[in-house]
Amino acid sequence: MGDLEIRPAAADDIPAIVAMLADDPLGAQRESLDDLSPYLPAFERLAADPNQHLVVAVREGRVVGTLQLTIVPGLSRKGATRSIIEAVRVHADERGSGLGTRFIEWAVDESRRQGCQLVQLTSDATRTDAHRFYERLGFTASHVGFKMQL
Amino acid sequence: MGDLEIRPAAADDIPAIVAMLADDPLGAQRESLDDLSPYLPAFERLAADPNQHLVVAVREGRVVGTLQLTIVPGLSRKGATRSIIEAVRVHADERGSGLGTRFIEWAVDESRRQGCQLVQLTSDATRTDAHRFYERLGFTASHVGFKMQL
Repeated sequence: MGDLEIRPAAADDIPAIVAMLADDPLGAQRESLDDLSPYLPAFERLAADPNQHLVVAVREGRVVGTLQLTIVPGLSRKGATRSIIEAVRVHADERGSGLGTRFIEWAVDESRRQGCQLVQLTSDATRTDAHRFYERLGFTASHVGFKMQL
Repeated sequence: MGDLEIRPAAADDIPAIVAMLADDPLGAQRESLDDLSPYLPAFERLAADPNQHLVVAVREGRVVGTLQLTIVPGLSRKGATRSIIEAVRVHADERGSGLGTRFIEWAVDESRRQGCQLVQLTSDATRTDAHRFYERLGFTASHVGFKMQL
């Protein structure tokens, strides 16, 4: 397989990103592939925020992965900055290629470059394969993640 | 007890906030009450970021609670914005007063005002009382929270 590039997402990448968000047992019910208009203002907001890093992984000109890294300053832990990884997706054709590992390692390295002392993420309790994956990469399943829909 | 005010934290609140962060079985090992200098640049960074809301609860002129609300735009869920609640602390004197409930309800209402469709938080797996508290308030323990120290 060709070289992999990880770069900031551009507006032109939105269709490929949304297709990956939707190609997932949980995401399928939540996304709208037929109408991309709700995604455009969200993309603009991400692009304008220096603490948001929406990135894509590209192989041979094709978007094959996406994740969002959020940098969160805070007072806790002596003023530690943390990062939060969200919305990690790898294209179906690339699963098992090691892209997921390279992608999360990139996010951890980028967090270090941004001065973070902690990286965190939550994963739906049903995604047990993902849990093993994150533990292999050095994450600890130390927390319970709570959500409330508004 | 007197009226409760919830307002943005000011630099003058840092000693009271750090004292509450440290007065906790987990926080005690992580904070530095004797030297507040690491907290000042973190406070400035929070204050300058329109997506960060570090707030305090004040009763009779005294800071009795703190939490941090982070607004996170994103593409997932048709471009939904979510909020993340972090670093919730209630002064020991106020526990059982209902302040925790009012505080989280404030954070949920503020998330709604900011256009969020989802509120999320993680709680250390050892904080079982906190888990019951969040479930009573309408949160679902649907996720596993992973962390990695850098």
